[in-house]
This record gives sequence, C-alpha cells and structure tokens, in this order.
Amino acid sequence: MVPQRRSGNSIPESEWLERPSGPTMQPSSPIPPDPVQLPVAESVTTHRVNYSETDQMGVVYHARHVVWLDVARTEHLRAHGFSYKELEARGIRLVVTDLAVRYRNGARYDDLVRIRCRVTDVGSRRVVFRYALELAEDGTPIADAETTLISLDASHRLTRLPADVLAALGGKAGA
Amino acid sequence: MVPQRRSGNSIPESEWLERPSGPTMQPSSPIPPDPVQLPVAESVTTHRVNYSETDQMGVVYHARHVVWLDVARTEHLRAHGFSYKELEARGIRLVVTDLAVRYRNGARYDDLVRIRCRVTDVGSRRVVFRYALELAEDGTPIADAETTLISLDASHRLTRLPADVLAALGGKAGA
Amino acid sequence: MVPQRRSGNSIPESEWLERPSGPTMQPSSPIPPDPVQLPVAESVTTHRVNYSETDQMGVVYHARHVVWLDVARTEHLRAHGFSYKELEARGIRLVVTDLAVRYRNGARYDDLVRIRCRVTDVGSRRVVFRYALELAEDGTPIADAETTLISLDASHRLTRLPADVLAALGGKAGA
Amino acid sequence: MVPQRRSGNSIPESEWLERPSGPTMQPSSPIPPDPVQLPVAESVTTHRVNYSETDQMGVVYHARHVVWLDVARTEHLRAHGFSYKELEARGIRLVVTDLAVRYRNGARYDDLVRIRCRVTDVGSRRVVFRYALELAEDGTPIADAETTLISLDASHRLTRLPADVLAALGGKAGA
Repeated sequence: MVPQRRSGNSIPESEWLERPSGPTMQPSSPIPPDPVQLPVAESVTTHRVNYSETDQMGVVYHARHVVWLDVARTEHLRAHGFSYKELEARGIRLVVTDLAVRYRNGARYDDLVRIRCRVTDVGSRRVVFRYALELAEDGTPIADAETTLISLDASHRLTRLPADVLAALGGKAGA
Repeated sequence: MVPQRRSGNSIPESEWLERPSGPTMQPSSPIPPDPVQLPVAESVTTHRVNYSETDQMGVVYHARHVVWLDVARTEHLRAHGFSYKELEARGIRLVVTDLAVRYRNGARYDDLVRIRCRVTDVGSRRVVFRYALELAEDGTPIADAETTLISLDASHRLTRLPADVLAALGGKAGA
Repeated sequence: MVPQRRSGNSIPESEWLERPSGPTMQPSSPIPPDPVQLPVAESVTTHRVNYSETDQMGVVYHARHVVWLDVARTEHLRAHGFSYKELEARGIRLVVTDLAVRYRNGARYDDLVRIRCRVTDVGSRRVVFRYALELAEDGTPIADAETTLISLDASHRLTRLPADVLAALGGKAGA
Repeated sequence: MVPQRRSGNSIPESEWLERPSGPTMQPSSPIPPDPVQLPVAESVTTHRVNYSETDQMGVVYHARHVVWLDVARTEHLRAHGFSYKELEARGIRLVVTDLAVRYRNGARYDDLVRIRCRVTDVGSRRVVFRYALELAEDGTPIADAETTLISLDASHRLTRLPADVLAALGGKAGA
C-alpha cells in the first residue's frame, strides 16, 4: 500500500505529506540526513516488477521493496569483489538490525525499477547502506531506504568484518 | 537476516549493538521516542511462523515481519469496529509512507509470535502505528516497528479519514 | 492469476474449462482420481487472506495457495501428534517432490479460507496429501491440490519414516 | 522443501523416487508426456536466487519456483511480441487454472537458474506452457513444470485470445 503516482509526474511530497502536529516534532522521515560521504562508488541494480509483487491497489506491495534492497546490497558487495555467499562460507553473517523506508510513489507491474545503493557508514562490525529506488524510465522516485547490518560469526556473536571486506566497503581496519 | 537469539535469553543489545562513531551521532534506532500516548487500547495478534518464512540462517527473513505488521494493524482496525476491506469499499486507501523496524532477536520456525499494536499519532489524514513483536512463550523481543499511513481517495489524493474511523482510532475530527 | 468468482455462485467449470483438443487426450486436471481412502481423519485449517497475498487482479496470487498447503499439512501432522519441527530435530526432512493445483475460483482480501487436508497414500518413505480449499463462509471451492513428499535424512538420502509417524499417518511399517 | 542435490551430480531419480505401491498405479509425475510439439521457439530466462527465497533447509522454498514460472511465461510472451501488461490493457486476463511441478533438485542461494519455457498446447481460449528449470552453470535439473491458463475478459468470462496473440503462440484462429 504505497502512494500511487499520477500519470506523468510524481506526486509532490508537499501535497500529501502532512506535517506532524503536536508538541513533539517528529522528522517527516525515519531516515536522518546523510552523514559524511564515504569514497565508495554507488552501485546500480535494476528489477522488473513481476505480477506476484503487485497487490490489489495496483502497485507493488510495500514489503517487496525490502527484498529489492537485499538484492541491491548483495550486488553492491559483488561489485566490490565479494559475494555474500562467500562471506557466509567464511563464517560471517550480515544481519539486519535496522530498516527504514520512505515510500514516495508506487511502482507498477512490468516497470523497470532502478535501485542505487551506497555505503554511508562502516565500522569494524557494522555497515549502513542507503538506497534510492526510482523508475528506470524517467527517474520518478519510488522510495528511499536505509539498512544497518551487523557482522556476526557462526555462534551469532559480534565479530569484526574481515579487513579486505572492510577496505572494499570504504572503512578502515581498527575503526 | 536478523540477530539469532541464544537459547533462553535474548542477546543483550549492548553486546552486539555497536554505537555509531564519527561526527554525526545517529540514533541507534530509526524509531523516535514515544510521543504523547493516545487513549486507545492496544491490540494483540499472534502468528505461528511457517516454513516459507524462514531463510537459510534458520530464522524468519526480515521482510516477513513487514507483512505481520500489516495483519496487526488490520486486526487493530477490526478490534475498533472497522475492517480495512470496508474502508476500501468506502473509497479510502490507507497507504504506507514510512516504515521503520528495529530487529532485536530472530524468530524461528513454528514459534508463536505476538504482535502488540497501538496508534501513537493520528491526524485527519494520517495515522501512525507502533508495534512490539515478541515470542508469545516468554516475551523475548523479536522487533519493534513503526508505520505511518496516509489516507487517500480513489483518485489517490489526500483525503480526510471518516469521522467515525478517526474517533475510533483516538483522533478528533478537525485535527 | 486465478479465475474470478462471480458474485454468489462459483463459475461452473463447464463454462470455462475447454476440453483439450488433438490426438492426445490430456486429463482436465493434473490430479488423478482419488485412490483407496485411508482411515485417517481429515484436518481443517483456516486462513484469513491478508493484503500482501492479493495481486492487481484483485484475487489471491496463485503462488500463495502453495504456502497454505504447507501450513495445512503441518497442522495435519500436529493434529496427529507430531510437529514438523520435531521431525526435523529427529533428523527427518519431508521434501516436496510433486505439487499439483487445480484453481477453481479466486479468493479475495479478508476472506476466510478453509483448507481440508488428508493423507491419501503413505509408504515407508513417501506421503501424499490432498487438499480442498474453499471459502469458509459458504463452501465456494477455491482450489484442489495434491503434494507428494519424500522422507530424507540429514544427508539427503531416502530414509524410512519413523514407525510412530507412519502409523499416525495411516501407513504400516514395512510397507 | 525440495530434494537437496549432492555436490556435483544431481541425485538420480531412481535413487529417491519410490514407485507408488498398491492397486492404483499413479504416474510418478503429475505432468503427462509431451503432446505434439508446436513450432514455437523456446524462450530462456535466468534468475539469480536471492536470500529471501531460501528456507532453513538451505534450498529455495518450493513455492518460489511458481513465481519464476510466471516471469518465464511473461518473458516468453514478450519474446513473441506481446507484453502481458498490454494484454491486460486490451482487457484480456490470463488466469492460471492448473499448475503442476515436479521438483528434482534444490536450487541454492546465489545460484543462477535457467528457465526454459515453451507453449505445448494452445486453443482459442487456453494455453499450456511447459518449463524446465535447471542450473545455468551445469544444467543440473531443478524442476519441471506445466501451467494451464485460460483467457478471460474484464467480466471474467471466457474470451477468445486475440488472433495476433494466438498466432504468435503457435495456434490457429478458430481452433
């Protein structure tokens, strides 16, 4: 259940996003402003929406985007020299601790969606990815998201990311 | 991919949650502190984890919880006198604009999960739900979450929630 | 993508099911006629269709029923004294080798679906389940299905079902 | 829950497929022998298994293959000049009435799966697709499947497939 997009333009956020009222000013998005940008390339993944992903509102059901993020960060790792499959074989598990998604416009059946992914923070045992999802055709924003993952070993204890993985993601060993 | 829980106790967050470093202090959770509590009862839903929901890490895949939230708020509405199906028939669409999930411990196959749901903010065209997911057996926390939904009409324009729905959710018409 | 049901009655199969033409007469259903009925009780599960299960045709997407069958046979085992979770702990894996579904009418959002499940054949290393899915409200048929599962050990070799499980499912040890 | 494959070779079917016993000889597969082959090209789709598709048995959960079939036939149509999205816009709905899958070997996380798809029967209001799913890397069979779809109009009544679609799929108008 995500905002429908009008034919042509995206719906200006000002039009449907009601500012929260009351004494406690909540940010309009659970995704805080961008921290210091790390010198890591952005990776791009595309996905063609299939029928199983739509719901009766005629757009992609909001839980599907979460899987697209998973695929995007997996490909981001691959673009930087690592497959998540290899990491698991090395005994490392990257586990999601936080997920935040701001839905902007609905994606529709057969749309080609582009997912831009970059690492915005990386520590020895933690990595944060940010994502921008948009229509490949014209850049209409679909959603923005952020996921935080921690590095656990096979016994599910916090463990340091291997130095080579850390470096590839833009972090420094010992950080 | 969510933190595994140890046999018995949950993993103390202090043990695996690394405080973010660097000049920009990010909150450890995308879910801000609870705003003013509205006088609305909490609803409780339970769900037994089925095999399709597990992944090869042996826990529930993190996107599944998002569907459980949907079921929880649907039942919350039902407990307050409305079915979402009726709302749709009345031309109202509740569309998710924001989703935030903090994953605490993994849920496993055949676990009975309890989802507590309450409305924490409601305006004439917007409602915010908060959720606490835990093991029914012993209250082990599984995840906390928050979703913001806006009310759109069939033409996908912002529209006021019907007064009866608003009142049932704890809001006031004209707010 | 499953046949929509008309308001009220189900669509008579004769009206839309075209007999296959050509020299090779294919059965109209991949599910062969019922074999000798085993003296095992039928178990009944219910499921309320949630929003994530619908597709833009306004009915439950056809792959979702497959998960409902899984839940149904899991509950069938439980009703006969075993949890599949226990079986796995005992080193037995029940693995699907064949799936056949005949879709009759679409199920809709918020419908309560009833799944009747029974064992129609059981050997020492193989069990066949049959299912009838219908609307709980009025018995409108949604689908019929059959799944064949084999019993494998942790090394993925065929292994005999434990005698107690076999007996509970209606089979005889040594069969 | 599908048969695991051994490292290297696929598990010979004779090794784990128990012939059904008893008076009623059931075919070992719900998929009958190939009917007369139609002069239509086979289309090929590939899919990289993502983490959400695995289950705790370490292989792709058996319901996921059903979605892959949907994507495969959608691409088959596209390869023959039609997008399913266009068909829907023309008021045609292709609805699945029958699904049969024979699972051969498990697919694993990050595997590249190849899905071969062809039309094996087409009438004026009905089309049957057959699929062979295999590992792209070495052809290890994953599953075989068949789906039957009927053509309905917006009122959900049987309707003839447009002549151009029929011809593209290898059928003849008036058949």
